[in-house]
Amino acid sequence: MAEKIRIGIAGYGNLGRGVEVALARCQDMQLVGIFSRRDPASITPVGADVPVYALDSVEQFRERIDVLILCGGSKNDLPQQGPALAALFNTVDSFDTHNKIPEYFAAVDQAARAAQHTAVISVGWDPGLFSLNRLLGEAILPEGETYTFWGKGLSQGHSDAVRRVPGVKAGVQYTIPSEEAMERVRSGSLPQLSTREKHTRECYVVLEEGADARAVEQAIVTMPDYFADYDTTVHFISEEELRRDHSAMPHGGFVIRSGHTGNGSKQVMEYSLKLESNPEFTASVLVAYARAAFRLHRSGEYGARTLFDIAPGLLSPKSPEQLRKELL
Amino acid sequence: MAEKIRIGIAGYGNLGRGVEVALARCQDMQLVGIFSRRDPASITPVGADVPVYALDSVEQFRERIDVLILCGGSKNDLPQQGPALAALFNTVDSFDTHNKIPEYFAAVDQAARAAQHTAVISVGWDPGLFSLNRLLGEAILPEGETYTFWGKGLSQGHSDAVRRVPGVKAGVQYTIPSEEAMERVRSGSLPQLSTREKHTRECYVVLEEGADARAVEQAIVTMPDYFADYDTTVHFISEEELRRDHSAMPHGGFVIRSGHTGNGSKQVMEYSLKLESNPEFTASVLVAYARAAFRLHRSGEYGARTLFDIAPGLLSPKSPEQLRKELL
Repeated sequence: MAEKIRIGIAGYGNLGRGVEVALARCQDMQLVGIFSRRDPASITPVGADVPVYALDSVEQFRERIDVLILCGGSKNDLPQQGPALAALFNTVDSFDTHNKIPEYFAAVDQAARAAQHTAVISVGWDPGLFSLNRLLGEAILPEGETYTFWGKGLSQGHSDAVRRVPGVKAGVQYTIPSEEAMERVRSGSLPQLSTREKHTRECYVVLEEGADARAVEQAIVTMPDYFADYDTTVHFISEEELRRDHSAMPHGGFVIRSGHTGNGSKQVMEYSLKLESNPEFTASVLVAYARAAFRLHRSGEYGARTLFDIAPGLLSPKSPEQLRKELL
Repeated sequence: MAEKIRIGIAGYGNLGRGVEVALARCQDMQLVGIFSRRDPASITPVGADVPVYALDSVEQFRERIDVLILCGGSKNDLPQQGPALAALFNTVDSFDTHNKIPEYFAAVDQAARAAQHTAVISVGWDPGLFSLNRLLGEAILPEGETYTFWGKGLSQGHSDAVRRVPGVKAGVQYTIPSEEAMERVRSGSLPQLSTREKHTRECYVVLEEGADARAVEQAIVTMPDYFADYDTTVHFISEEELRRDHSAMPHGGFVIRSGHTGNGSKQVMEYSLKLESNPEFTASVLVAYARAAFRLHRSGEYGARTLFDIAPGLLSPKSPEQLRKELL
């Protein structure tokens, strides 16, 4: 084995922890350190001997890190950190605000090109592996429709919305794809599906003392943008039940391309993920693309890239010969 | 739209016909002609105005074809045609003899490099899209197992084996994945599955007049390599039933990666195809990779390539900007 790829982690929440544990399973990589805006002394990494540094000091590690994996949030962290850190390092991130991707790509691309770095953006599963399957679906079956379903899974944004309702002490929201809608898609009938038909939403809510359950339920199910367009069920549970039954972060979903070829032959391509830990899976995708970022940089491919630009073989620690022999 | 990509088809069986009809759905491509070893006058293309030429004359089309799609068989045609035609054209083929891929790759690579052509080999769904998902699965979840199931689908090789049994006038064989085995895999329990547990086989057989049904059934279910290791059912039907109910070429299958992250979180990635026409789907994949072959050649990437070496974005007629905006 050649020298290991030296990785840094910028940001240490659920995603950063996921990257740390994913790296432990990759023999061709080593973790140089975790970089956080919080006081390093307040952070306990999973690995007892992993050093934690102030994010402000990361520039001093330019010669010691091959790829920096950015684990900050898309709303407040990455728009600033992405370009700034791509000027200092090769980077991989999971920027997931779909409608701001073109703007983010341009900013990161400019910073990375100027510094001759490689920056892979919007890696994960959606955007990410789901995007890849949307692309493959329409490139291979140009006549057809693509359907994306999410869940069953915990939605962070919708859980936050539930928790903002007066009278709610704590709570989580699950997005659930409609089995019936998926079966219609799989049949190849190319249905037009409304928002309400594709997913339902389930909320598990802990009430504040004295709160009116009926009023809370009404406030949730009628909330515009988040719940009004869906069939939403609200369950009231105790704090203990919430902790016991709803502290995991499962997620997943389906991308289905249904198309026709020839004289109307139905062809269905389906991709699905069933994840017990959403952040750990996203982190595992980031780590595989960090390997690709390292290789792209070594071959002089500078600038921003997405999954669409990256040959899949670059994700594997195996050589092209091995891949052809073992996996093709 | 820029100038169209000019495509030739070498070999005109089910796959060649599939390529012809797939091209009709791609506005950025045009079909220059079909090339066959048979007498061109004996061939009726789907498109009334598509010219048919003798394969021997293909060399005269070097300046008029951007990519030649090779639709010959892996056993007898491609081992010779692949390298010979890669010396004359950019090519795409569906070479699918898994254990001979390294040798075939080397021969095509040498011919293509010497002539500064780009040759994409082993394109389709297995090898092809299934291989891609096997690679993604193990690169993203290094701790886990990959399972490939085939079917429900018509297997050409096994149908041929059935037809060679004395007393069999005609017949087809379907490979059927075991639902129970797939559910065990999806549960994340990482089962060890025997050949018999993964698939069953179903044969529909027309007997020759006076043939002994019991003897034919025995000869099929005990046939080594093909049937002895499976639970095989033999149905006897009339010639009319065979024609009416079994003349389509459905196929499909599943690639499932089941792995663990972190402290044992189960993560399942699943890819599946449900195809009413196997050759038309394979042809559609070939056509998308012909687009990639054209672009790789234009950017000076000569030699043999597989799906593992090709950035997915090259398969789409859309620009990188459009892909990021619409599909990421």
